[in-house]
Amino acid sequence: MTQHGIKIQDPNFEIRVQESFNQQSFMKFIGAKLQDIALGYCEIVLPFKPEITQQNEFFHAGVISTIADTAGGYAAYSYMAHDSDILTVEFKINFLRPGVGDKLIAKASVVKYGKTLSICKCEVFTHNNDQEVLCAALQMTLMEVKRAN
Amino acid sequence: MTQHGIKIQDPNFEIRVQESFNQQSFMKFIGAKLQDIALGYCEIVLPFKPEITQQNEFFHAGVISTIADTAGGYAAYSYMAHDSDILTVEFKINFLRPGVGDKLIAKASVVKYGKTLSICKCEVFTHNNDQEVLCAALQMTLMEVKRAN
Amino acid sequence: MTQHGIKIQDPNFEIRVQESFNQQSFMKFIGAKLQDIALGYCEIVLPFKPEITQQNEFFHAGVISTIADTAGGYAAYSYMAHDSDILTVEFKINFLRPGVGDKLIAKASVVKYGKTLSICKCEVFTHNNDQEVLCAALQMTLMEVKRAN
Amino acid sequence: MTQHGIKIQDPNFEIRVQESFNQQSFMKFIGAKLQDIALGYCEIVLPFKPEITQQNEFFHAGVISTIADTAGGYAAYSYMAHDSDILTVEFKINFLRPGVGDKLIAKASVVKYGKTLSICKCEVFTHNNDQEVLCAALQMTLMEVKRAN
Repeated sequence: MTQHGIKIQDPNFEIRVQESFNQQSFMKFIGAKLQDIALGYCEIVLPFKPEITQQNEFFHAGVISTIADTAGGYAAYSYMAHDSDILTVEFKINFLRPGVGDKLIAKASVVKYGKTLSICKCEVFTHNNDQEVLCAALQMTLMEVKRAN
Repeated sequence: MTQHGIKIQDPNFEIRVQESFNQQSFMKFIGAKLQDIALGYCEIVLPFKPEITQQNEFFHAGVISTIADTAGGYAAYSYMAHDSDILTVEFKINFLRPGVGDKLIAKASVVKYGKTLSICKCEVFTHNNDQEVLCAALQMTLMEVKRAN
Repeated sequence: MTQHGIKIQDPNFEIRVQESFNQQSFMKFIGAKLQDIALGYCEIVLPFKPEITQQNEFFHAGVISTIADTAGGYAAYSYMAHDSDILTVEFKINFLRPGVGDKLIAKASVVKYGKTLSICKCEVFTHNNDQEVLCAALQMTLMEVKRAN
Repeated sequence: MTQHGIKIQDPNFEIRVQESFNQQSFMKFIGAKLQDIALGYCEIVLPFKPEITQQNEFFHAGVISTIADTAGGYAAYSYMAHDSDILTVEFKINFLRPGVGDKLIAKASVVKYGKTLSICKCEVFTHNNDQEVLCAALQMTLMEVKRAN
């Protein structure tokens, strides 16, 4: 049992999450790394590079959203059964400050894990010389679906 | 005056939007193109390539969000003054069907253009052999800010 | 079959929707009426009264949200089986203009009807001497659940 | 200065918030009370009564949204100048569990206070015999506007 009283369905969730992350070509393409995974929690880090910027050379809102969505997805996926797939039903994200920094860190956690639907939130921070500043806040709904075999 | 009764502030909006789009490195990186721009309307097209996929080799929710956010931003930006910048305040996106196809097309339009805040919506479609299917629906808030010079 | 190619599960959907609406005490309390119901579409009207206002004596954002959520719910519910219940998973609403007028009208339609999840949108209009003005725009996710008997 | 480093603009914010709350007829109509107000924080409590329910006699999603929106608004309003008005730009709310209980409590806090726009979040809890359960989570954008005199 986890601290939230949720039964652990897959003790090998860390490996399963890392493998799924590795299969996401887009994560590799933008340069994102899975930094931390725990039951109901996920961190993704994304170093700055010019290819992922908008017109002012800040991190593009699209990449901020991308790592927030992905971190939220894996936070929920950690609770799921080994033969489940996960879908993002929807998310909503507020951009609080410009995406300026050496790297972004997305920190996501599960608000409620449910049999069909789960709710996660994610905060994305910019890092400038070790100073962490909240850049965006996301709230999302995810769906667990049994993999067709 | 446009059809929505909004005064045209910048008759050269098409050039201004295209130039801003060209400055977005991330658009070039993922392979997105500005397909159509009109007052209060914008279309962005994104051909499939393996680098922008998730674990099932579908278009990543992050790239779907990215082009929807960007199309919505330029739909609003078309109405703005030549010395204005635009910021995404927030967006919410529902994913209706898997992102499977030869290309994505994001079609965004302005719901309300305001002095400070504008509201846009965007629909993203997948294309498979000329069949267009609604894949995602976004609703967003944007802010016009005067460029500091 | 409906125009969207969705199989009609309950030919008596109009009666079923009206009966469910009548059971919502809160609709009666605020004075909302079911004005129109069709497959995938619902309209709710709410006349002004001082009890449902905010500090400036405009329609409260809460009542605007309430009728938008309810109209969206019944738009989706019209497609559902006679023994199904409907839950609002989440909604997002933008307030475009102050809620000033003689009445509000919420017009909701289904964007996608799915076996488990459906997506609806709703526009809320104010009415002033027959002039209709868009006041709020909502996008939502709903879930169909079989009623336990 | 507050704990978030935000300058206190109005030392009498508690009185100002309470007076504004009292002017909201809809709060009185549904039976909501301002339970707690601090800088950047607000709590609203709503006892159960049959008039504010949906078809299953649970708290209506509309009243859950209403008190969440209002609590978020006053959390931000506490930071504002005495001659400012506040508008809800938009909100997004997830419904996690049915609204079943003796009362609801909405607990809202400011995520970011800005000169024009502020971001708040709110959690709504049901209470059953002193057991508090998370029922809904909201994230919202608010706008400060100078009152026209």
